[in-house]
Amino acid sequence: MSVYNRAGKTFSFPLAYTHTYSPRSSSVSFHSLPRPLLGAPLAVAVTARFRSAAEGMMEPEQQQVEDAAATLSKKAAKKQERLNKKLAAASIAASEATKEEDPLAGNYGDVLLQDLQSKPISGRQWTSVSVLDSTLDGQTVLVRGRCHTVRGKGKLVFLVIRQAGYTIQCVFQIKDKVEDNMVSKGMIKYISSLSKESIVDVEGIVAVPDRPISGTTQQVELHGRKVYCVSKAVPVLPFNLEDAARSEKDFQKAAEQEDLQYVRVNTDTRLNFRVLDLRTPANQAIFRVQSYVSMLFRQFLVGQNFVEIHTPKLIAGASEGGAAVFKLDYKGQPACLAQSPQLHKQMAICADFGRVFEIGPVFRAEDSFTHRHLCEFTGLDLEMEIKEHYYEVLDILDGMFVSIFDGLNEHCKKELEAINEQYPFEPLKYLKKTLRLTFEEGLQLLKEDGIELDPFGDLNTESERRLGALVKNKYGTDFYILHRYPLAVRPFYTMPCYDNPQYSNSFDVFIRGEEIISGAQRVHDPELLVSRAQALGIDVASLSTYIDSFRWGAVPHGGVGVGLERVVMLFCNLKNIRKTSMFPRDPTRLAP
Amino acid sequence: MSVYNRAGKTFSFPLAYTHTYSPRSSSVSFHSLPRPLLGAPLAVAVTARFRSAAEGMMEPEQQQVEDAAATLSKKAAKKQERLNKKLAAASIAASEATKEEDPLAGNYGDVLLQDLQSKPISGRQWTSVSVLDSTLDGQTVLVRGRCHTVRGKGKLVFLVIRQAGYTIQCVFQIKDKVEDNMVSKGMIKYISSLSKESIVDVEGIVAVPDRPISGTTQQVELHGRKVYCVSKAVPVLPFNLEDAARSEKDFQKAAEQEDLQYVRVNTDTRLNFRVLDLRTPANQAIFRVQSYVSMLFRQFLVGQNFVEIHTPKLIAGASEGGAAVFKLDYKGQPACLAQSPQLHKQMAICADFGRVFEIGPVFRAEDSFTHRHLCEFTGLDLEMEIKEHYYEVLDILDGMFVSIFDGLNEHCKKELEAINEQYPFEPLKYLKKTLRLTFEEGLQLLKEDGIELDPFGDLNTESERRLGALVKNKYGTDFYILHRYPLAVRPFYTMPCYDNPQYSNSFDVFIRGEEIISGAQRVHDPELLVSRAQALGIDVASLSTYIDSFRWGAVPHGGVGVGLERVVMLFCNLKNIRKTSMFPRDPTRLAP
Repeated sequence: MSVYNRAGKTFSFPLAYTHTYSPRSSSVSFHSLPRPLLGAPLAVAVTARFRSAAEGMMEPEQQQVEDAAATLSKKAAKKQERLNKKLAAASIAASEATKEEDPLAGNYGDVLLQDLQSKPISGRQWTSVSVLDSTLDGQTVLVRGRCHTVRGKGKLVFLVIRQAGYTIQCVFQIKDKVEDNMVSKGMIKYISSLSKESIVDVEGIVAVPDRPISGTTQQVELHGRKVYCVSKAVPVLPFNLEDAARSEKDFQKAAEQEDLQYVRVNTDTRLNFRVLDLRTPANQAIFRVQSYVSMLFRQFLVGQNFVEIHTPKLIAGASEGGAAVFKLDYKGQPACLAQSPQLHKQMAICADFGRVFEIGPVFRAEDSFTHRHLCEFTGLDLEMEIKEHYYEVLDILDGMFVSIFDGLNEHCKKELEAINEQYPFEPLKYLKKTLRLTFEEGLQLLKEDGIELDPFGDLNTESERRLGALVKNKYGTDFYILHRYPLAVRPFYTMPCYDNPQYSNSFDVFIRGEEIISGAQRVHDPELLVSRAQALGIDVASLSTYIDSFRWGAVPHGGVGVGLERVVMLFCNLKNIRKTSMFPRDPTRLAP
Repeated sequence: MSVYNRAGKTFSFPLAYTHTYSPRSSSVSFHSLPRPLLGAPLAVAVTARFRSAAEGMMEPEQQQVEDAAATLSKKAAKKQERLNKKLAAASIAASEATKEEDPLAGNYGDVLLQDLQSKPISGRQWTSVSVLDSTLDGQTVLVRGRCHTVRGKGKLVFLVIRQAGYTIQCVFQIKDKVEDNMVSKGMIKYISSLSKESIVDVEGIVAVPDRPISGTTQQVELHGRKVYCVSKAVPVLPFNLEDAARSEKDFQKAAEQEDLQYVRVNTDTRLNFRVLDLRTPANQAIFRVQSYVSMLFRQFLVGQNFVEIHTPKLIAGASEGGAAVFKLDYKGQPACLAQSPQLHKQMAICADFGRVFEIGPVFRAEDSFTHRHLCEFTGLDLEMEIKEHYYEVLDILDGMFVSIFDGLNEHCKKELEAINEQYPFEPLKYLKKTLRLTFEEGLQLLKEDGIELDPFGDLNTESERRLGALVKNKYGTDFYILHRYPLAVRPFYTMPCYDNPQYSNSFDVFIRGEEIISGAQRVHDPELLVSRAQALGIDVASLSTYIDSFRWGAVPHGGVGVGLERVVMLFCNLKNIRKTSMFPRDPTRLAP
């Protein structure tokens, strides 16, 4: 059930699973909702009701849409069940009727659930769609994938199978000579009835076609011999995968043609049906890139003697102060969710681990309705002993990010291409030795550009963007470090500069003019820490276990927090952080 | 502030930072607490007040100790500050007085905080204690570490420096010939005054002694030339590191000697002052082993084409049903913390990612006061498409754990030795091809041993332990898989067996008779899923976004959840899971 709040009234309507498609009449039935305009694509009808919530920046006032927290009403669920049963019965009856007369009936049909419940292993081998190429010419292979598209009828049907974003065309054709035939009318009919996104096993012979195949990733065909449906998708989906995979360029082309009109799937519709949305080639690629970023992050740090730690997310008191915490009851004690592993990773340094890192969730209860804030995101945190200077942290950071960027460009070529196909972006420009500018130098650049700012204030999003553009223009890099921020704009645990206490040993790191990393040398002296906290009006008592850690001897240290989703978003210039969070959480979204 | 609840009354007393040690009188002063018995070691006095809470199994009734949620009262904080200032002033005065007359005064003393605030880099190089050996004989090195122990006076002082669990002895000696001297009386006095756990920089010459050095890990000495204190620890610590690092064998030895008595540091005291406790060689090793386990886990899976994902911890509804969830308010919506990534990792499979894994926190609000339950722990989760059989999951698991165990034994030798030193354990016995027994075979083994159990019930902790012993005896392995559990004792999403619906395609994995992993083939058919959930009385409506994922076509799949802390605890036979969680959370512990 989705709840749609309009003008203070709350009413509910069932979603995808109640759009049922009857093959006989081709009509679409909605329940407890007015029927959409005839001829209007289904996805649009659904989309309209979910518009606006996550399309980049937005204000809470604009947020009229309560999220699809999705509790299906019992009545609707029962209705749905009855319908599904009817459909299933009809499908079985049809298939049985056809099969009776078909000598090839054993070569197609629905796999019984019982046959998928870990019966003794058959020894069959499945081949990945991604590896199908001309080297396999003439070989019989078995693939399992989704029914992406089906077209044609009569004696010929093309079934495109998609697996993890890769596609292959399977051709089923009835030959004129009966005795050669491996394909029957019944089989063609069965394939034509397959619903999109159903999981099918196809056995066929790899063949290299005369002409290049457009519309599939693989440049060979399968001459289909057998086809079995492993799992049926409901006949009508919340949206079509092809629609969800189109680029702006596609829409532009369509706009130039009178007879072509594409359905646009909005961000909120995508996120409401995220499992479906994630199947597009671009999304398949985005999360493989994200996985690769974590891997490269860890690989670099492990090579530098960092220890991976896991700090608690449930903590007493506010982790770093401030109001933007999620509060909860912990067995009768007031608790909150950690806004970052800041305090505990510093405590790990005080506990002699020397160099530590953590990859874990970070919780922010802020009401930030922007393209770059989430209420839960993945923090890549590191903290390390330094001997003399926060430059030691910058050196690690520098080496690490160059290794991440190099690694992505080298190992994720296919993924970056797939993303580029739907969301074109300029490759990231970065230097082998990362540019470091002081905050003062940054302000000077802006001043020369006509923007004068408070020398001890913070940069806002706009000035950060502008500075990014100026830096790119002058130094030819999208990636740089800005350091020695004013002390006043940094947290209490930031170490002031030795030569000017109005500045601090802190830094931000930017990609394409947006911040992805914040870091600093920390205050390791307990007295200074207390006085800094007091100066900022922070309740020192609530931080006593943290502050005590420094009373038992503490090495000078520094560290950083990186937002994983931001790194991927900005590396690929994706413009909305919801694209790089698998199941994003923002002030209004708690599902799916 | 720690809150100690006795007979319903709550009163508070300040901890470590208010035990101040006055060098003049050697007396210990407690504030707002009766003074401990004269002569009784401090740690014991503190310990007694924290006894019992986490020593293995315990009942809530026994739990008289409210945790050190640690909010230092303002009064106590101010008192503490005044005392620290006094001490600091006294120390500076003493050191200044000495220095005036000392020509070597520049070679020792406290480093000013200003000199640690990232001044221009000096170019000095620090050497790790762990690499100091005879190959460096005669070389001058600079080390930074903790003042572990200081002994001797007059013309000779031994300063043991500890860094990340490794120790080196530094010898400072005044030579008879004045002109040769690099060490002065003032320096000796300064070193003798260093408080334990303070961070010091020592410059000295590596020397190979005539006799082996007992009591340090490194078998060379440093002939000290310079010593600077980087960060001072408070003079009296909550407990001594030597006490925290003793093994049962040490205590047994002491019991045999009349004049020797060791202080025992209890689990709760350790956990209340965890930063200090983590500095023992065994703890340094435990968390390095833990870090290595995650690394090997990931390394194996990445090699098998798994994608790392990050699923939300904030979710609407109870993640898998059941009451043991932490609830919170999410911007006006009721929410809870995920009990596992179960639902979302399955949704990632429905989203075509094929094979996924996640390392992240898992939250359980259960009132389990045992040696093996935590309210927050680190889950190593994986989920994968299977073609035919849950054995495909077991094959991955098998290869992975053998690679983890082999990897630990090969690469963590020093760490395992350090753990063994304090907590002796038998090395884990495991087979290169992991033993798989069916649940029925397991029951049969127990039956032969005289224990008859309900064939469709679950095993309890006791019968699991017993079965572990029987398996070890019969098959010579501490690590094995028990599969085909009764359906009735598994979650609703578990796939029943094809040949007998009273059993399921599920498994647990055991180390030393304790469960570390639970897994299964999952139900991928939405109708069966709904009917299984209904059969178990679960509110299907609250799971609709999850169930819908299967309506859009779903591949057969299976997966497992591994408890990281349990793996380390049981590999090293550590007997209490609090030992393998850096900052553990149990029903009564939310700090530090």
